[in-house]
Amino acid sequence: MSITSFYPPVRILMGPGPSDVNPRILEAMSRPTIGHLDPIFITMMDEMKGLLQYAFQTKNELTFSVSAPGSAGMETCFVNLLEPGDKVIICQNGVFGGRMKENAERCGAVPILVQDPWGAAVDPHKLEEALKSHPDAKVVAFVHAETSTGACSDVKTLVEIAHRNDCLTIVDTVTSLGGSPLKVDEWGIDAVYSGSQKCLSCTPGLSPVSFNERAAERIRTRQTKVQSWFLDLNLVMGYWGGGGKRAYHHTAPINALYGLHEALVLLQEEGLEKAWERHQRNHQALGAGIEAMGLRFVVKEEERLPQLNAIAIPEGIDDATVRTRLLQEYGLEIGAGLGEMAGKIWRVGLMGYGSNPRNVLVFLGALEAVLHDLGADIEPGVAVRAARAVW
Amino acid sequence: MSITSFYPPVRILMGPGPSDVNPRILEAMSRPTIGHLDPIFITMMDEMKGLLQYAFQTKNELTFSVSAPGSAGMETCFVNLLEPGDKVIICQNGVFGGRMKENAERCGAVPILVQDPWGAAVDPHKLEEALKSHPDAKVVAFVHAETSTGACSDVKTLVEIAHRNDCLTIVDTVTSLGGSPLKVDEWGIDAVYSGSQKCLSCTPGLSPVSFNERAAERIRTRQTKVQSWFLDLNLVMGYWGGGGKRAYHHTAPINALYGLHEALVLLQEEGLEKAWERHQRNHQALGAGIEAMGLRFVVKEEERLPQLNAIAIPEGIDDATVRTRLLQEYGLEIGAGLGEMAGKIWRVGLMGYGSNPRNVLVFLGALEAVLHDLGADIEPGVAVRAARAVW
Repeated sequence: MSITSFYPPVRILMGPGPSDVNPRILEAMSRPTIGHLDPIFITMMDEMKGLLQYAFQTKNELTFSVSAPGSAGMETCFVNLLEPGDKVIICQNGVFGGRMKENAERCGAVPILVQDPWGAAVDPHKLEEALKSHPDAKVVAFVHAETSTGACSDVKTLVEIAHRNDCLTIVDTVTSLGGSPLKVDEWGIDAVYSGSQKCLSCTPGLSPVSFNERAAERIRTRQTKVQSWFLDLNLVMGYWGGGGKRAYHHTAPINALYGLHEALVLLQEEGLEKAWERHQRNHQALGAGIEAMGLRFVVKEEERLPQLNAIAIPEGIDDATVRTRLLQEYGLEIGAGLGEMAGKIWRVGLMGYGSNPRNVLVFLGALEAVLHDLGADIEPGVAVRAARAVW
Repeated sequence: MSITSFYPPVRILMGPGPSDVNPRILEAMSRPTIGHLDPIFITMMDEMKGLLQYAFQTKNELTFSVSAPGSAGMETCFVNLLEPGDKVIICQNGVFGGRMKENAERCGAVPILVQDPWGAAVDPHKLEEALKSHPDAKVVAFVHAETSTGACSDVKTLVEIAHRNDCLTIVDTVTSLGGSPLKVDEWGIDAVYSGSQKCLSCTPGLSPVSFNERAAERIRTRQTKVQSWFLDLNLVMGYWGGGGKRAYHHTAPINALYGLHEALVLLQEEGLEKAWERHQRNHQALGAGIEAMGLRFVVKEEERLPQLNAIAIPEGIDDATVRTRLLQEYGLEIGAGLGEMAGKIWRVGLMGYGSNPRNVLVFLGALEAVLHDLGADIEPGVAVRAARAVW
């Protein structure tokens, strides 16, 4: 055996995440490791809470980063808020609603699925109906920004319906945080989780979460122990809880947290609203280019996410051929379809640091070239011209 | 709000972990992020498996790194191998045996605790007795290297006893991997977990694990679903399983894995046996210095871990005062006692990259100075002289 150091190539990451990482974040992650109970590290954790509260637009005390990827953030919400036998309404309009169902079942809870077509937003009327049929439901869960389809749902309306029916809400904001408007307090979200590697432009591996007082109270007054020791917020709160003493629970991923801290400082420097506007503007430019090439979006305009563009693969074009050529010839990664969308769509991310004119132009130029080579009838330069007209 | 970039101080990490990180690892973590399904990342994952197999001394196919800290590695073993009602014998001789009990209970399993004094190795006779009383036990779990006390248990003997009684074994090697002899295949360990931030000298956040075929078969043939979706090896195997297609499960912590890869390359460059010898040699030097100052170890010599030195706090000396002065005046972090050892011991790590003469000398010199200031009667220079005589 003689394995040597690994030197990754430099890619342009325009898939569903990880997205391009700001070099300042990579540099921050390589700073000296200190102890997870070091007084100076504790001040960093306090800052992190403030930065996450800003990103989530919340004053929730229980706001921190789960020491594992977004999937573990989802699980944190489900295992802490659900007890065996609890009924939970899950609105599914893509892959991640299905994962919520898996989580609920493994908690011994009873998931009720409300299905919407993949590529569409969650329909509030269907949720209303489901709550009429299941007045004993305790929790409503749904995805804000479906990473598998690029559809954005109306969180405010869905949360209002849930609250009118005495349900707590769990909202997946993995792909929305930092990329599109998200207002945890104003919209009344009870529990929310996200990921570090989407519109925060950090490396993958961390999951920011936030719980309001109503959710925290539910957790404190559970009848049964949380089934996961690692994710039990009654224990984690002792470390991230803030104020006085930080009790050892698990060893925090120090350097990954340096990276997330820097990512959140960058977001604060730009300002949330400005970041949302930038995502929207670059999405418009990409969209103009896509449509100028005769391609179409999967999601209708008013429900489209700016950071995750699902594009229908044109008739007669092979999915994998195009993605492989983009990767090999241009160092450009885009995403494949998941589940029932596999082979039918491409997922093009314009997330965080990666939402910029350079990436839009590189993608449009490279896609046009590859499709042209494969025999598509596209006027050279049409996509880039259309995009430039937007900025 | 105006939070700026976080610049940590440079510490010398001689606590129970995280330990000093090799700069090559920090640099590796700052390399460009690529996608978790990128073909080049997949080759890195294959290399990682080979490197971990070497570190664990195993040929187990199911050898990979859980995308979360050691606590999640522990939970991975318990939730996958235990089903509700299963009886598990847990040998406890420190904090982490207690955490195993918590994990077993949360799986709906029935933990039977076999207690040994904190600071002593697990007693094989007591395990033998427990298995006689509980012939229906399915799993035996214990800690190889107790991080809370510095005691090393005889894995080979304990595994033999478990196997004679038809039990699978779960062994915690968080602090032993890379620091003291560990031979997963030769000793017949069925399931093992570790951490990145101890004797591998990597940053915290990852948990290397390995399962033999018997354990994998138990997982594949479970009657019930694994209660954690994130840690369900039936799903994770699809991504880390090797060979052909890598199915998306969760987004791997790319840059953290670059770091672990580099840490394992470093271990391979040195050679496992040489690393074990180095840990032993520097521990002897530290021990000579400690005893020359009139201090004593908590663990008797033949059960002492070289990488985690538990030292009894001398009569009349305040724990926190000493640790705070070491940190503030010398940038030196050592660990406090946990649980029933709180206030009674210091835990001094000599782990991985941090197991070197420089750290031994700095620690002995600094501790001598602080104790002297606090009125202890120690001949100046005695500790350093004693340590130097060992090398």
